[in-house]
Amino acid sequence: MKSISGGVTAPKGFLANGLFCGIKETKKNDLALVYSEKMCKAAGVFTTNKVKASCVVVNSEHLKNGKAQAIIANSGNANCMTGKKGFENSRTMADSVARGLGLKTGAVCVASTGVIGHPLPVQKIVKAVPKLIKGLSKGGSKNAARAIMTTDTTLKEVAAEFMIGKKRVRIGAIAKGAGMIHPQMELAGTKPASAPSSAQGYGRAQQGYGRVKHATMLCFVTTDASISPSALREALDTATRNSFNMITIDGDMSTNDMVLVLANGMAQNKMIAENSKDAHVFGAVLKTLFLKLAQLMVRDAEGATKFVEVKVKNARNAEDACTVARTVSSSTLVKCALYGSDPNWGRVAAAAGRSGAHIDPWKMKIYLGKTLVLKNGGAIACKPGILDRIFKKKEIAITLDLGVGAHSATAYTCDLSTKYVQLNSAYHT
Amino acid sequence: MKSISGGVTAPKGFLANGLFCGIKETKKNDLALVYSEKMCKAAGVFTTNKVKASCVVVNSEHLKNGKAQAIIANSGNANCMTGKKGFENSRTMADSVARGLGLKTGAVCVASTGVIGHPLPVQKIVKAVPKLIKGLSKGGSKNAARAIMTTDTTLKEVAAEFMIGKKRVRIGAIAKGAGMIHPQMELAGTKPASAPSSAQGYGRAQQGYGRVKHATMLCFVTTDASISPSALREALDTATRNSFNMITIDGDMSTNDMVLVLANGMAQNKMIAENSKDAHVFGAVLKTLFLKLAQLMVRDAEGATKFVEVKVKNARNAEDACTVARTVSSSTLVKCALYGSDPNWGRVAAAAGRSGAHIDPWKMKIYLGKTLVLKNGGAIACKPGILDRIFKKKEIAITLDLGVGAHSATAYTCDLSTKYVQLNSAYHT
Repeated sequence: MKSISGGVTAPKGFLANGLFCGIKETKKNDLALVYSEKMCKAAGVFTTNKVKASCVVVNSEHLKNGKAQAIIANSGNANCMTGKKGFENSRTMADSVARGLGLKTGAVCVASTGVIGHPLPVQKIVKAVPKLIKGLSKGGSKNAARAIMTTDTTLKEVAAEFMIGKKRVRIGAIAKGAGMIHPQMELAGTKPASAPSSAQGYGRAQQGYGRVKHATMLCFVTTDASISPSALREALDTATRNSFNMITIDGDMSTNDMVLVLANGMAQNKMIAENSKDAHVFGAVLKTLFLKLAQLMVRDAEGATKFVEVKVKNARNAEDACTVARTVSSSTLVKCALYGSDPNWGRVAAAAGRSGAHIDPWKMKIYLGKTLVLKNGGAIACKPGILDRIFKKKEIAITLDLGVGAHSATAYTCDLSTKYVQLNSAYHT
Repeated sequence: MKSISGGVTAPKGFLANGLFCGIKETKKNDLALVYSEKMCKAAGVFTTNKVKASCVVVNSEHLKNGKAQAIIANSGNANCMTGKKGFENSRTMADSVARGLGLKTGAVCVASTGVIGHPLPVQKIVKAVPKLIKGLSKGGSKNAARAIMTTDTTLKEVAAEFMIGKKRVRIGAIAKGAGMIHPQMELAGTKPASAPSSAQGYGRAQQGYGRVKHATMLCFVTTDASISPSALREALDTATRNSFNMITIDGDMSTNDMVLVLANGMAQNKMIAENSKDAHVFGAVLKTLFLKLAQLMVRDAEGATKFVEVKVKNARNAEDACTVARTVSSSTLVKCALYGSDPNWGRVAAAAGRSGAHIDPWKMKIYLGKTLVLKNGGAIACKPGILDRIFKKKEIAITLDLGVGAHSATAYTCDLSTKYVQLNSAYHT
């Protein structure tokens, strides 16, 4: 594969746009649109949080037929915990795009990110949609990427080109995420999404709520590959599990996390079938792009000063490997030690021990960087100062060799800084 | 029950002492001894962390016969991840007390708290034991309590008197804990404790390790009640689950957490049998004392400015109630919001949603203080400023009514402050 520019508009037949419609107080872009000239095979993975934003529930409905042609997304308001009206508003967003583009409402996916519990000013969106559609272009990926940013300080966009048979195929993606990041997404339809029961009343949208804000991770993927629905779902699920689902910033899973992928087939390659060699190639490229975006999120994490890789080797099974990597990378005390450049491997060992995975303290080895610090249940003496030097770096690798099996996993995290606490205690100001 | 003074020496037949033996750089008390004039029924609950300090493993062995007569504890060094030598050192601690007091080694329990991965300077302890024993007194509880403090700023000591039949019975306790606090303790012997395999070598104690520090929670309980071993274990387990196991400071479970209880029967009450009315009375007093100590820990939490109660009501089952309370009270974002006095209930809802418990967003209600903020999946408008005023208080209650059952749980937590991050990133300096 070859990295290319163009983001979501790099693949054939995709256009994008982003603009300010009036939601964000900063007056920065807050409304994005991604559009394919042809109907796409489509799939999504969504937060497993049981409190789901209405866009998550609406997308699960819209993707039941495995097709979509456009994605509309707003930032500045999560449209979550906004009662029945919130669901209506998500549908209105999709509907306004569908009418403008001559599509069925079900062909439009919806995403929101921002404040929880505040009514979405959907009329501002509806009013801006014609202009948003009119501005769709091959050069619009960055505008769209900008329009989904919240506390992000960097624009997150990737694209790659690779060969399927003799055809050039492209995948592009944009993403956002810098806080409330601990995704655990799964395919829509794997479990029933929560939807309102018709027997109930709903909170009305009014002023006077608490100032309730949050962030989330969103990723929109486009490809001109021709691919079977099952191969697309499989590739999305596997790539997500090995990238976004392995990052953490603060351990707090959002209500709005989602990755949507649209495949329009315009590369005219032979259709990629599930479990084929081509599916493997497609999946590998997708995973590489997701990993880039996931790492961009961690590098852009609120208040973070370090990028940290937590590798687990020789776990009893894949789940254990993942659990240990996730637990160590989420530990408040480990993250404080990283911030303070304190090579405090005791906290790493303690976090592994509480993860629930099978740990034999007598078999576990811990490495800071490449330096072995724990073996046979006890500390390994090493050159004075070497651990301090490793922990003072901006990029740190921590490896746990559990010594009880053959399974591996890698998680990505950042340090926990006083600035993170400041940002998230005074976020609304 | 009536609160009384005297801590662990309040019950008949118990003596205690604490002194500085040379481990702590601060030269404050670092060695504690609690002793009963008569052999006791004894029980312990220990950390479920799979990386266990050697004192935890040694106590599990010593308590197999359900008896003990003394507890020796040091602060300043956790004696954890210190190889085979660590186990020898824990046994040496017990042995030196046993010899001085004319007991069997197995009648002495051991506890350590402090640095992980550093060799315990056990000879300093052995050398100090004769003086420690000589100084045992009825007035020694505070000295002992002081000797187990690490980052604690307050001495934690409680005692109570109550009636079993016509006999006056007393329970006393001392405790420590201010960071690395997220206990999940269970009775010794419930699951096999991890012990070294004889086929393996061990890391040797040498200089040059990383500076690896941590804290833990310890609690030593004395009572002159006459109580059956099973009733004692049951009371200890139940009281722990409803107190210490429901607090969190940073979500990081320690390798050394333990509660030890010694019951010498000198109150001469009719022996308390399991499931009896008397067992209920004894258990209720024990729980009340544990809850006081648990709350003292949260109030003394590193860097904390607020004391927070997270109440969960109407959960589907007891486990769900506990899970939601624990998850909300551990959420980094919720704790940042508490620090910033930001009444950000969206983060509370999101944390509940990711807890894994059964949540129906349409049935869940959230209260900040006594003010309802979420109902029927949407925000409830309330008087401007009221939520800010609630969150500016030093004591805050958050209630989640899940509306899907009849089970309750309450967890206790604190806010996450910039000072906590400073303390735990520069802890070793």
